[in-house]
This record gives sequence, structure tokens and C-alpha cells, in this order.
Amino acid sequence: MPDLDELKSIVGEDFLLTDPDRMESYRLDWSKGAGAGMPLAVARPGTVTEVQGVVRWASEHRIAIVPRGAGSGLSGGSLAVDGAITLSLDRMRSVSIDPATRVAVVEPGALNAEVKRAAREHQLHYPPDPSSYEICSIGGNLATNAGGLCCVKYGVTTDYVLGLDVVLADGTLVRLGGQTIKDVAGLSLLKLFVGSEGTLGIIVGATLRLIPAPAPAATLVASFPTVQAAANAVVSLGSRLRPSLVEFMDNYAINAVEDFREMGLDRSAGALLVVQCDSPGDARAAEMLVVEQICTTAGASEVFSTTDPDEGEMFLAARRAALPALERKGSMLLEDVGVPVPRLPALLDRIGAISAEHGLPIPVVAHAGDGNTHPNVIYDPAQPGALERAERAFAEVMQAAIELGGTITGEHGVGRLKKSALADQLGPEVTALTRRIKSALDPDGLLNPGAIL
Amino acid sequence: MPDLDELKSIVGEDFLLTDPDRMESYRLDWSKGAGAGMPLAVARPGTVTEVQGVVRWASEHRIAIVPRGAGSGLSGGSLAVDGAITLSLDRMRSVSIDPATRVAVVEPGALNAEVKRAAREHQLHYPPDPSSYEICSIGGNLATNAGGLCCVKYGVTTDYVLGLDVVLADGTLVRLGGQTIKDVAGLSLLKLFVGSEGTLGIIVGATLRLIPAPAPAATLVASFPTVQAAANAVVSLGSRLRPSLVEFMDNYAINAVEDFREMGLDRSAGALLVVQCDSPGDARAAEMLVVEQICTTAGASEVFSTTDPDEGEMFLAARRAALPALERKGSMLLEDVGVPVPRLPALLDRIGAISAEHGLPIPVVAHAGDGNTHPNVIYDPAQPGALERAERAFAEVMQAAIELGGTITGEHGVGRLKKSALADQLGPEVTALTRRIKSALDPDGLLNPGAIL
Ligand SMILES: Cc1cc2nc3c(=O)[nH]c(=O)nc-3n(C[C@H](O)[C@H](O)[C@H](O)COP(=O)(O)OP(=O)(O)OC[C@H]3O[C@@H](n4cnc5c(N)ncnc54)[C@H](O)[C@@H]3O)c2cc1C
Ligand SMILES: Cc1cc2nc3c(=O)[nH]c(=O)nc-3n(C[C@H](O)[C@H](O)[C@H](O)COP(=O)(O)OP(=O)(O)OC[C@H]3O[C@@H](n4cnc5c(N)ncnc54)[C@H](O)[C@@H]3O)c2cc1C
Repeated sequence: MPDLDELKSIVGEDFLLTDPDRMESYRLDWSKGAGAGMPLAVARPGTVTEVQGVVRWASEHRIAIVPRGAGSGLSGGSLAVDGAITLSLDRMRSVSIDPATRVAVVEPGALNAEVKRAAREHQLHYPPDPSSYEICSIGGNLATNAGGLCCVKYGVTTDYVLGLDVVLADGTLVRLGGQTIKDVAGLSLLKLFVGSEGTLGIIVGATLRLIPAPAPAATLVASFPTVQAAANAVVSLGSRLRPSLVEFMDNYAINAVEDFREMGLDRSAGALLVVQCDSPGDARAAEMLVVEQICTTAGASEVFSTTDPDEGEMFLAARRAALPALERKGSMLLEDVGVPVPRLPALLDRIGAISAEHGLPIPVVAHAGDGNTHPNVIYDPAQPGALERAERAFAEVMQAAIELGGTITGEHGVGRLKKSALADQLGPEVTALTRRIKSALDPDGLLNPGAIL
Repeated sequence: MPDLDELKSIVGEDFLLTDPDRMESYRLDWSKGAGAGMPLAVARPGTVTEVQGVVRWASEHRIAIVPRGAGSGLSGGSLAVDGAITLSLDRMRSVSIDPATRVAVVEPGALNAEVKRAAREHQLHYPPDPSSYEICSIGGNLATNAGGLCCVKYGVTTDYVLGLDVVLADGTLVRLGGQTIKDVAGLSLLKLFVGSEGTLGIIVGATLRLIPAPAPAATLVASFPTVQAAANAVVSLGSRLRPSLVEFMDNYAINAVEDFREMGLDRSAGALLVVQCDSPGDARAAEMLVVEQICTTAGASEVFSTTDPDEGEMFLAARRAALPALERKGSMLLEDVGVPVPRLPALLDRIGAISAEHGLPIPVVAHAGDGNTHPNVIYDPAQPGALERAERAFAEVMQAAIELGGTITGEHGVGRLKKSALADQLGPEVTALTRRIKSALDPDGLLNPGAIL
């Protein structure tokens, strides 16, 4: 075992954890991490120079590094690896807003919600909004190219990155992009690091683009007799207009939320859509009318509309509560598959069939507007064979998405949980290409080994 | 010299040009290409398989390839190289629209305008709009990550790419992404190829995201007494709202356009802004009021507003005419530097000083809203030393942009004309990283040698 004193002197005694008890809260992520190892140490550097020091030390000693943000990941990307250093960015969290340039300059450990709040003080807005925005870091968002609820209109994390500071596998710091909105000088390396899940470098700083705060959204909630009726409404919406949010919950999810926290959702509905429009002026009302028409035509049994932001927020809170609510129903394998929007009805059909075949509930919540669904396989771990059946169902759902021209992960990332399915989606040529990039940037394979590849 | 018969049999006799006369129209681009070489042959494949065949043949014979779209590039990216194959995509130009998925599936040779037109037939819109949209190909747009006029609100080419088919240096075809809006499975290789200027692979197909046609734009034209007053207005606009277009012309450019084609522009103005807003409903009028206020406060001497689309289009036509109009004033070195928006006034100051120092006019037109300017160094090639002075001025303008935290190229690409300045912007670490990626993907350096690096 290498001598950790040097490492201690880099980050400071207090910020190099080696005691298993103190390391415990840095071992897992929200995937609950079957298979998390025991790190050699957890390093919590406070500056870019310290990050470089840790990476150089690790590189010299051929010790692997697992970069870690806030640990809210759902694909096991920041699970500890035996004998590796977990490099946590949780102490580096400054945020500063430049209102004239309309950017936020942030350290990676800052929470998404902290960036949003800082922007709001200048009447500016940072759009990307994973449901976990109160508990996930910007560095993690960048490393997973996080999505969320508003991306159906406002795009995902990569669309808001102007500059990145990255520490490479050998400790070199590179500054990619900057504060200029349009910049095509050289290869688009910036975008390569977004979504690389800690396998190509450590993100130690970012310049994020902000927009003027959009007008307040109006909210519509529609109950549908069946999942298919709701899915058809989503397809129509997608071909007619650009709502700022189109969220979906099926009957099982609705009831789980109501069991968890009474919110007055229609327990008898086959599925529920929450739709928001935030166009300025009178356009919003016109759009909401179209949304209502489309839902009614698709067979909605009940439609409720409000322009009261607090009331609207209540329905979003219900949607955001779905994950914790479902977790109370048993153990769960969390899916994140996506398809082109018109294939959403077919995907939901396939998921229903897989659920029936394995005798396991697979409730679906979805950022439906961009075809990104979270079918969650629920099983009772006490039942013999249940986990195996759940894993089979989980794999079959990914297979269905691939067959429908979709993806095994729309926003959570591949991490450690989905890497066995990745090659099925990418095929051998793209997999080989991925390996070439990985070994060009991290020839010794020290950055987040076991993630993605 | 290698035997070209095999190559002929791949693309067909008619589509392998070796006669210098027939090759001539494939040798240059719009940069006018001092230094363009004489290609071994021009290959015009008609299918993906033929492209693969050409690339495999070239790879086996260690012959370089210059990918070529429509040749409208301004940085010499598709200039012919002595003894290389110019691989023109001009025969592969199918476009098909899938309105339900809201995507365009295109071959690379299709013109930007052809994609826009096909989308319009379905009430859909493909936003990226380089001024050259009638004469540039989608493949070229992807390879340069082209910008344009609307990107201040709608973003650039990379923001609209969902899928890419790319032929790699060894002839392998990879399909990256697809038709799914959110997809984070694996590294973001798709975005790496966008803007790679033909140095990493040949783009042979793309799936582009479309949006519902925006509401018609209102147009405002404001005359300012000085360049600085107009630049200050741009900075205020940027911190207050999101117009869909903010274009700038200085006095020299205005007069060049009027000389070229009388359009009724104010010849005495120090600078002119053309601003459009296209928010739906009554929001547009509210925004235009703010735009007008900002321009007046910044010192506009005259402000004219119209909601008539044809009248608005006239002013855009004037702006688009600037480049051909300026070309009549002498020989020209075309710049494309960008800075963070608040540094626009400082950049224009520096350009004025460089112009005075070298005694050469450097008229500026600009996609001002995102800080992207086209200062154009005009010189008389008959005058001894003029070209050298122009080149010095050209280099100093890039240096000024770098010093102001900006970029040597906002949208045209590095190509062959700006590569000597690239390292100054990127620095040694990013340059080294760029080389690592390049050699991972094109170890023999056969793809567009001499471009970017
Ligand atoms: C209740 C709940 C709801 C969620 N909803 C959404 C949602 O709507 N949309 C969505 O996209 N995700 C969602 N997630 C998933 C998760 O929050 C996101 O993936 C988030 O981006 C992870 O951020 P983190 O800081 O927690 O990263 P971590 O979990 O710590 O790490 C995630 C990955 O990023 C890497 N990483 C982290 N920081 C860095 C860095 N600075 N440099 C390099 N690599 C780094 C890690 O190695 C790992 O591979 C949800 C999670 C929960 C628990
Ligand atoms: C009057 C005028 C106005 C312009 N205005 C703008 C503007 O507003 N915004 C802007 O961004 N640009 C503008 N341009 C520049 C130019 O039109 C763009 O760079 C355009 O994207 C080039 O497309 P092309 O098909 O002509 O490419 P080419 O000039 O043929 O090639 C450009 C580069 O792309 C590569 N390439 C082309 N096709 C492929 C392919 N299929 N696969 C791989 N590599 C390929 C070439 O090797 C070369 O490096 C303007 C040009 C002119 C003449």
C-alpha cells in the first residue's frame, strides 16, 4: 500500500479520509450501489491546484480515481472502487454571476439549486433542472450531461456550457472554451467532456450560459383512462407546439405518490400528464388552449388548468415525489430509457408486456415530452429469484428501447449499472471508437475505471 | 502515381475528375485560396458505400483526402491539397422530413436552404442560418459548426444535431446518436465531429432537429452616430432580453452596400443595428418597445420599426449583401473574431486603432448579439507592401480578440487561414490534447491535412 502522507500534505490532514466510518458516506450513490468497493482514501481537495496534486500523485502511483460530485447519481458512476481514491469535489462550490456577460462561473461542487438561486438574484435563469436539483452538483450534471423537466423546451446541460476547466489524467489543467458565445476555434473538446462521466478528466470549473428569467408558466394536469391515450397526447403535443414541460405518471406511480403524501391526484386515472407553457404575454393562454384541445381529443377524462405558479408547483412536486414514493413499494431497479417521441406509445406497450411476463410491477414516470422514460422495476428482495427476474426485466426494457431506435439512458448516464448493455446500443464500431478516445486521454485507465466501458 | 482505375470503378468514370479544367471548380473556396494545390483527382461519390470505398482506397495508398461540401467556406478548409483526393459530397443531397419526430434526415451535400425549404412544407423550421445559406451545404455547416444570424436566440448548428453518420479515416462507418432527443449513452462523440472541419471523419448523413415555425419577426433598424454607441446598445440588449437577431454594420460597410445596390440605408450613420424579435403574440410588441428604448438611450439618431416581414427581409438582405459589397472595394482578408458581448466596445476600439496604424480600412459587420464580428481588412494588392500590412493587421485583430478573452473564429472555422494563430488562443496544453485526439482518430494524418493543425 502506497504511503498516503504525501497525499495528506496535498489536501490537508482534515480532508484526506481513510477511516472506513468517515469514508462510508462517500462510497455509494443513489443507485444504492451493489458492488461498491472500499476506497484507499477519500480526498476532498479545496482548490484546482490540490486537485491536480491528487491526480498527479495517483498517476505516479498508478492508483485509480473515482471523481465524485454530490453522489445523487442513479447509474453507479461514483461508486467507490476497491483501492482507488475517491476524489470528492464537495468542498469546491463557489458560484459567481456576471450579469453583463450573462454567465455563471462555478466550481464543480456547487449544487444545481445554488446556481439557480444565485442567477435568480440577477433576474437570470439557469435552465437545466434535474428533479434532484436540490441535491446534485453542477460537476455531476456536467459529467452526466444531466437533463430534467424543462429540457423539452430549454435543452440539456451541454447546451449551457461555454467554458470548462478540466484536470486530465496526468494532472494537466486544460481550459476549454471561455465566455464567448460562439467559438469554433479548434476541435469541440469542451462538448466531449460533457457527459464523459468522470472517465476522461476531472471537471474543476465551468462557465455556464444564463438566460433572462422566462415568464411564469401556466400548468395543465390531464387524467387519461389509459397509458396509451396519454402517450398519444404527448405525440400530438410534440408535433404541434413547444411546451416548457411535459411530464407523465402512470396509475401505479400516481397511487404510490398518493400513498406517500396525499396530493389529491386522481387515483383511478390510467395515466396523468402535467404540461406547462411559459411563452410570454398572451401567447401562453393561446398555447394552453391548444394543449387542452389535444388532451381532450386524445381522450382525457379530466383536465385542470391553472396560472397560479404555486398551484402549478404543487403538481411538479407530486411528479418529483414519484421516485421516493416508488422506493417505498419495494426494492427497485431504476430505468432511464428514451425513444423518438412518436415511438413512446410502442415503448409503453412493450414495458407493459415485460411487466406482465415477469409478474413484476414496472411503474413509469417520464419526461415524456422528449421521449425519456423512467420505468422502474419493483421487486421483493425477500422472494427467491425476484432480483434475477427484475434484472431480466431491466435488461429487456433496455433492449426494447434499442429496438425502437432509442437509448438505454436518456439522462442518468451509463455508469456501472448499464455498461453491459451499452455495446448493444452503440455497436462494435462506435464501441471501438470510444475506446480509442478513452485511451488517447487516459492511457493507463486510471479515471473512473469500470464506468461506461 | 497510384493507378486511379480502381477509384474510377468505385465512383464511376463520370464522377472521378482528373482533368485540371474539370477539377478547377473544386479547388478553391470563398477564401479565394492563395496556396490551393492541384488534387490528384476529385471524387464525387453518390452513396455512403462509395464514400467508404474512396476512403479505403486512399487509406491503403496513403493518399490524403480533402472533404468538400459546397466550397463556400471562408477559412480555406476545403482548399485542394497537392496530390490529395478532393472528396466532394455535392452529389449526395437527399432531404427527408419526418414531421411526427420533427427531424430532417439529410445527406451532407444538401444545401442549408434546401433543408429549410423542405421543413417549411411541414410548418417546421431548421434554425441555423449562415448568411450563405443558399450556397452552403449541411455537411459543411456541420463540419464548421456554422452559425449565422439567428443564433443569438436559436443557437448554432451543433444544437440541432441528433444523429450523424461518419466515415472514419480507415473507411469504417459509424452511426452516432439517432432520432432520440435526449441520449447520454456513451461518450458524446457526435458533438466531437461537429466543427471538426473534415479532420476527423467524413460526415455522410445527419438527423437534424426541427422546431415549429416561430412567429414572424418584427424588425427595427437604428442608426447611431458612432460605432461605440451602437456597441453599447448591443451590450444593453444582451443583458435585458433575447432578440432573435442583432446585426451590426459600420459606416464603411453601410456605404459599400449602398454603392453595390441602393437600399436607402443612412450613409451618414456611424453604425447601424438591425434587430428582430419573434416572440409570439403581444410579447413581440412589448419586446420591440424595450429594444427601441435601449437604442434611443444609447444615442440612436434614428429608429425605424416594421412588422412587415418583406420590409424586414429587405434590411436583412442589405446586411447579407455586405460581404459581396465589400469585396468590390479591393482585395480583402475576412475576419471572424468573437468576444464576450460586454467586450464588444473594446474590440471595436482596438480594431479602429489597428486600422489607423496600418492605414487600411477595416470595415466591420457583425452578428453583434453574440459578440461575433467580421472585421474585413481591405487592401490594394497593386500597392507594394499592402498585402503584408493587411496580413499584419489581420493577425493583430486576432490577437486583440484573444487578449479580450475571445476567439479567433466565431463561426467560419480555423481552416488553413488561421491555424498559425490557433495555438495562441488554445495554449500548449489544449493544442497537445487536440493532437492526441487527432492522432487517435486519424493516425496517418490523411484527413484534411493542413487544416486546423
Ligand atoms: C431523486 C432523484 C431525481 C433525479 N432526477 C434526475 C433528472 O431529472 N435528470 C437527470 O439527468 N438526473 C437525475 N437524477 C440523477 C442525478 O441527480 C444526476 O445524474 C446528477 O447529474 C448527478 O450529480 P452528482 O453531483 O450527484 O454526481 P455523482 O452522483 O457524484 O456523480 C455522477 C457521475 O459524474 C461523475 N462526476 C461527478 N462530478 C464530477 C466532476 N467534477 N468531474 C468529473 N466527473 C464528475 C462521477 O464520477 C459519476 O460518474 C436524479 C437523482 C435522484 C436521486
Ligand atoms: C457570403 C458568405 C456568407 C457567409 N456567412 C456565414 C455565416 O453567417 N455563418 C457561418 O458560420 N458561415 C458563413 N459563411 C461561411 C461558409 O458558408 C460556412 O462555413 C459553411 O458552413 C461552409 O459550408 P460548405 O458546404 O460550403 O463547406 P466547404 O467550404 O466545402 O467546407 C468547409 C469545411 O468543412 C469541411 N467539410 C465540408 N463538408 C464536409 C463533410 N461532409 N464531412 C466532413 N467535412 C466536411 C471541409 O473539409 C472544410 O474544412 C459564409 C460564406 C459566404 C461565402
